[in-house]
Amino acid sequence: MLIHTIAEVRAKVREWKKQGLTVGLVPTMGALHDGHLSLIKKSVETCDKTVISVFVNPIQFCPGEDFEKYPRTLDADRKLAEDAGVDIVFAPSAEEMYGAGHIMSNDFLTYVIPPFFYQDKLCGKSRVGHFDGVCTVVNKLFNIVQPDFAFFGEKDRQQLIIIQKMVKDLSIPVEIVPCPIVREDDGLAMSSRNRYLNDEERKDALVLKSILFNIKVCYNSGIKDVKALTETAYSYLKPCHSLEYLDFRDKNDLESKTIADNDTIVFIAVKLGSVRLIDNIALAG
Amino acid sequence: MLIHTIAEVRAKVREWKKQGLTVGLVPTMGALHDGHLSLIKKSVETCDKTVISVFVNPIQFCPGEDFEKYPRTLDADRKLAEDAGVDIVFAPSAEEMYGAGHIMSNDFLTYVIPPFFYQDKLCGKSRVGHFDGVCTVVNKLFNIVQPDFAFFGEKDRQQLIIIQKMVKDLSIPVEIVPCPIVREDDGLAMSSRNRYLNDEERKDALVLKSILFNIKVCYNSGIKDVKALTETAYSYLKPCHSLEYLDFRDKNDLESKTIADNDTIVFIAVKLGSVRLIDNIALAG
Repeated sequence: MLIHTIAEVRAKVREWKKQGLTVGLVPTMGALHDGHLSLIKKSVETCDKTVISVFVNPIQFCPGEDFEKYPRTLDADRKLAEDAGVDIVFAPSAEEMYGAGHIMSNDFLTYVIPPFFYQDKLCGKSRVGHFDGVCTVVNKLFNIVQPDFAFFGEKDRQQLIIIQKMVKDLSIPVEIVPCPIVREDDGLAMSSRNRYLNDEERKDALVLKSILFNIKVCYNSGIKDVKALTETAYSYLKPCHSLEYLDFRDKNDLESKTIADNDTIVFIAVKLGSVRLIDNIALAG
Repeated sequence: MLIHTIAEVRAKVREWKKQGLTVGLVPTMGALHDGHLSLIKKSVETCDKTVISVFVNPIQFCPGEDFEKYPRTLDADRKLAEDAGVDIVFAPSAEEMYGAGHIMSNDFLTYVIPPFFYQDKLCGKSRVGHFDGVCTVVNKLFNIVQPDFAFFGEKDRQQLIIIQKMVKDLSIPVEIVPCPIVREDDGLAMSSRNRYLNDEERKDALVLKSILFNIKVCYNSGIKDVKALTETAYSYLKPCHSLEYLDFRDKNDLESKTIADNDTIVFIAVKLGSVRLIDNIALAG
């Protein structure tokens, strides 16, 4: 069922809750791929009812980013979602979410702001204000849908960690379920932005997983010093790869690591032409 | 029933919700007076169950304010509340709310930040960050208690308007019930901080209501120009009165008024010695 208004979602969820049914939420910006479908599958398995939101959230895009050209494929998304067992596809307009003449600045809108320590690094460093927009919309979606569980991909792991922190800090009554990265056969992490890549860039995009997988092999072979682990990685980079960061951080609080351990996540961001790609890997396991 | 932990409140509220009972929340910092009791009374009348929180919230006090000496009278508060029909008095520690070694800065804590336009005026001007702390704790209390209704006094009307804005912006599923200011027999608005006043200051404190009531009389007699309404007011001030603001603003969005109308609230803040007092009046009605 496709729903565009907050009131209708609320009414539907209220009915379900009265029947004692559990509700899962999968927040997305649409342009669904197998990564999203793995979240949906997990929700459908875990919960009696599943809602996905499809909303290209204007307040999480920075000036100069791809808000206008971000892929919007609602008809296809709806079909994919419903075939996968989703009960409600919630696709609100920006007006529905932020009001008529939606003045989306912190002059006139209440924001949920994650701690600076969690957002002054990795993607937060170049995407200033991005996580403010993410936390605000996710908080609002939680209030609208009031899910028992919400499903987030580990692909956007800084986002996942920040949302887990928000849930803890604000005592939000939602259980966050992290879901593993889904990769193409050749190892590229799935992303709605992969469709921006031309053939050449698509091949060059494998550098992210190559670097991460290599670091994990080296770590498993006994190298723990982050400097040593990083040096081998750099040899994978070609002139077309503009490395934004390669960073070793704790999986709970994003604290920097100089010696890698089983709590370490390796984060990478690379620009290929105008396309910015991110990936990460946990060194444990 | 006195409860100190989030988990216990949640468990109790969950029981109630299963029985289909409605829940009211009255957030307080304790030191209960008849103003608070009017909120409690309203909640007990409106809802099946009433929770009051008693929490002197450290993150809404600015440096140099009265956090340390703020009156803490939990035993008396509990008795008053329970006699008035309250089901749960929730009195958490700062550690319970913000974590062990509670690092209460926005470096390490997720904050809910009201729009700048709503907090760069009136009390927000001198109490920088105050409403960030208020919104964050109220948001968290809403998530913990999940009330159907929450009761706020019009005494702190900027706070009330900011919380109504937060509820709207973040689609929080709580209905905010504003409750009228309760006054002493001589007209002084009730406040936990009134107990700081010595006998002399207690008499001088009547200046706030005198100015507001006089403005309302003038408005009702046909004077609408804010400048004219303000001028008569100033004649009430004595050297002991340090006027922080006397301000005419819209009751919905705090927009400034030059011509008063039935949507206008008159706000006043006066310092008497070290005690800061606030009051306000709606010109309508």
